[in-house]
Parts: sequence; structure tokens; C-alpha cells
Amino acid sequence: MQRYFIDQSKTAGKVFLPEEVAHHLVTVLRAAVGTKFELVTADHQAYLAELISITPGNVIAKLIENLGKDSELPVKTILACGLPKTKEKPELIVQKGTELGADKIVFFEAERSISHWNSQKQPRKIARLQKIADAAAEQSHRNVKPQIEYCPSLKQLLANYPATIRLVAWEESAKEGESSRLFQALAKLQTGDSILAIFGPEGGLSSAEVTIMEENGIIPVGFGPRILRTETAPLYFLATVSFVTELSKNN
Amino acid sequence: MQRYFIDQSKTAGKVFLPEEVAHHLVTVLRAAVGTKFELVTADHQAYLAELISITPGNVIAKLIENLGKDSELPVKTILACGLPKTKEKPELIVQKGTELGADKIVFFEAERSISHWNSQKQPRKIARLQKIADAAAEQSHRNVKPQIEYCPSLKQLLANYPATIRLVAWEESAKEGESSRLFQALAKLQTGDSILAIFGPEGGLSSAEVTIMEENGIIPVGFGPRILRTETAPLYFLATVSFVTELSKNN
Repeated sequence: MQRYFIDQSKTAGKVFLPEEVAHHLVTVLRAAVGTKFELVTADHQAYLAELISITPGNVIAKLIENLGKDSELPVKTILACGLPKTKEKPELIVQKGTELGADKIVFFEAERSISHWNSQKQPRKIARLQKIADAAAEQSHRNVKPQIEYCPSLKQLLANYPATIRLVAWEESAKEGESSRLFQALAKLQTGDSILAIFGPEGGLSSAEVTIMEENGIIPVGFGPRILRTETAPLYFLATVSFVTELSKNN
Repeated sequence: MQRYFIDQSKTAGKVFLPEEVAHHLVTVLRAAVGTKFELVTADHQAYLAELISITPGNVIAKLIENLGKDSELPVKTILACGLPKTKEKPELIVQKGTELGADKIVFFEAERSISHWNSQKQPRKIARLQKIADAAAEQSHRNVKPQIEYCPSLKQLLANYPATIRLVAWEESAKEGESSRLFQALAKLQTGDSILAIFGPEGGLSSAEVTIMEENGIIPVGFGPRILRTETAPLYFLATVSFVTELSKNN
């Protein structure tokens, strides 16, 4: 069923739909009065809704019931990705990362980032990625739209993104035969915890960057023996967070 | 380090490089005599190699040592994907699925597949996808190039793709609150086993298709509470197979 986010909290049973939602529902999907769909309010509650009135400039829906379902990961999951070279990779990370439950996706300037987002470009780039996240959140039936952010340096990343557990994907870690730190870290997670995972850009992170991270208590983890591209590793990570916190807890 | 696959098995220390490999190494990468790279022979062994002679039509390398590393998943993992609508989705599944360790990727005509590959189109499509798989296998340092195949019906899929464990990604399964069947299935896997996972196209599988699968002993599993796109679910699945068989066994 079609799902939309609205900025309003539930105040009464009737909702005046925002222009964008009304346009998509009535003009794009040609929905008529009586059509049912889902609305997620600003307080992250998902409702079954029904279209009750369509007049020019005023499209009104009625909230039928709170679906009482929360599709969010039980832990707040933050991806921090070294700015990739191409435009397509951040878009893929954002779209798939949203489907897979990320709470926040931060692109930071890493030592080997070839692309740089200057202060002029950066708000436009983030706005575009946020749109992709919003659409993916509707499509994947999230209760929360992930926040897309930009961070100009590793230093600021480490200072501004605290979390219960902080990891860095480190290929050398896999080469050293390390194969259980990710498992051990995820096994510790409890509902309400937060977890930050840092990923390098195409050229990888430098040893200096990883050393700084280790000095800040960030755990280097391997993701298995194959080399994953910069846009694939975050998806691997999110799948394992879901697997451990959503699929393996209530056997 | 650059890795290439060759069709020869190791017979002696010297290898005449196939034209395509020689072209990429010498013309594209401008490698000179003395350059080191990796070669995977037809018996799936990875060697450190060195370029020892470049003459027109003859590029020769020396195998220095068997790297003794196997980056393959300990279980043979087969993806069976309902043929998606767009060209991009099979390409993404093949590229990312290869990085994540798939042994075989089969595209089958599902009831709700909108695209159809007729017998004229089909070999060309598969050849193109196989090229993407081969390149991704080199880049991700696999020892095996996954096989890309086409299957014209669910019936033939069920008959021709046996496996130790066979699963189907079934959204309704998640809606029913089922959340541990994937975990339970993966926990049973032993080295050398095979696992087949079936995924619907964009419109999903029909209840009839899932019923036929269940009658054939295929287990419906949910992948968490969010709705994953047809190209995202196989990646989630492969990440969990890696996590369980490669990262959680030797704590």
C-alpha cells in the first residue's frame, strides 16, 4: 500500500494533505475518494488513512487506525561514508541504506576522497540525497526518514557523531585473519543503543586515518575475505545489524 | 593488487597471458616487466605473478607463489531472481551478488515478471551479465567466477536447482510476524552445503507460486520488517550467509 510522510502530528482524525502528497495521490496515482493508503505522522506513527474529499487546493484524508507497527531497527544505525568519486554511489548508498534501516547517513571528506563538496555545492547535493532517502523511506515502509548529512573532516566526524558502539570497516583487518569482531560488536547491542560504522571512499582509508580512529576507541572490523566496493560494504553492515537485532533474538 | 582469471590450470611456472588480460595489463594499465599482479587459474588457485616478457602478441608472466587464500563462501550460494523489469536491476544484482560471494545467479521468468527474455535475446543478455560477473569477481578478489544463468519457468527452476537448503523470500512471512526462519536455516549450514534463495520480481511472487514452492519443501523466510526492493533482498541474504558462515564461527 502507498505510504506517505507528513510533517503534522496527529491532532484529530482529519488531515489536510500537503500539496506534494495530494499531487502524487490524486494526479499521479489517480486515487479517488475512498482510496486507502498509509500516512506516517511527525511522531513516527503509521496510520491507515482514507481519502474523503478532493477539491481544488484541498485534499483531505481521514485517519482510520494506528497500524501499531514499527519497522525501525531496534538500534539507531549511522553510516559514515568517505565521499565517493561518482554521483551514483552516494545515491545507491542512500537508497539501499534507507531500505535497510539506516537512521542517519553522513558523507565525510576522507583523505583519499577524490570528490570534494564545497560549501556552495554541498547543500544542493544533500538536498538531492535527502529526497532519495525520503522516497525510499516511503517505499520501504519506514516509520522514520533517515537524515542525510555532510561532514567536512574525519576530526569533526569523530567529535560530532557519538554512539554506543563505533566501528570502522578495515580491509587489512580481514587480511590479518580477523573474522569475529563485527560479530562480537553486534552481539553486545541492546534495544535503544546506537551504532556508527565508518567506511572509506574508493581508495580506502589511510593507515593514519585508521590509527586516529583506533585512538578514539573505534573498532576496526572485517566484513569477510572478499573485497567489497565502497557502496557495498555499508549494505553488508546494515543487513547484519538487521539479522542480529531483528531475526535472531526471538527464536 | 590487480587480479585476473585465466582458463589454464597451472602446468609450469610460465604463463602466456590471454589476449584480453595482456591488453588490460599492458595497454590499459601500462604495466612494465617486473609488475606484480594476481592470477587465478582454472582450478581456482590464486597466484602472485610477475610480468617477465612483453613482445607483440606474446605477453608472459611467471607464477611466483600460490597465495594459498580462498575468498569463497564456505557454502555454495545460489540466487534465483524473478526477472526484473529494468536492465539496471539484473546488472546490480550480478555485480553486488558477485562481490558478496554468490556461486550462481539465475534469472527466472516469474508470474509477475514484466520483462521476458525470448530465446533470441536471452543468450546476449546472459553473456553481458556474465561479463559483469567476471569483472566483479576480479575486483572483489574471488577465486571463482559465478555462473549467470537463465531459466524460463519456476517449474524448471525447482527441478534443476537442488540444494541442501532452499528458501524463498516472502514478504507475507514478515507480516505474519515470522522473524527467525532465516536465522534457523542459516544456523544449520555446514561447510560444503549449498543454499538456494528465491526472490520475486518487482511485483512480488504470487501466492500460487509460493504454494508450489512450499509443496516442494522450500522454506518461506522474512528479511525483517522493511520492504526490500527486488534487487536489495538478494544482497541482504548474501550478507547474512557471509556473516553466519565466515564471521561468527570462530570466536
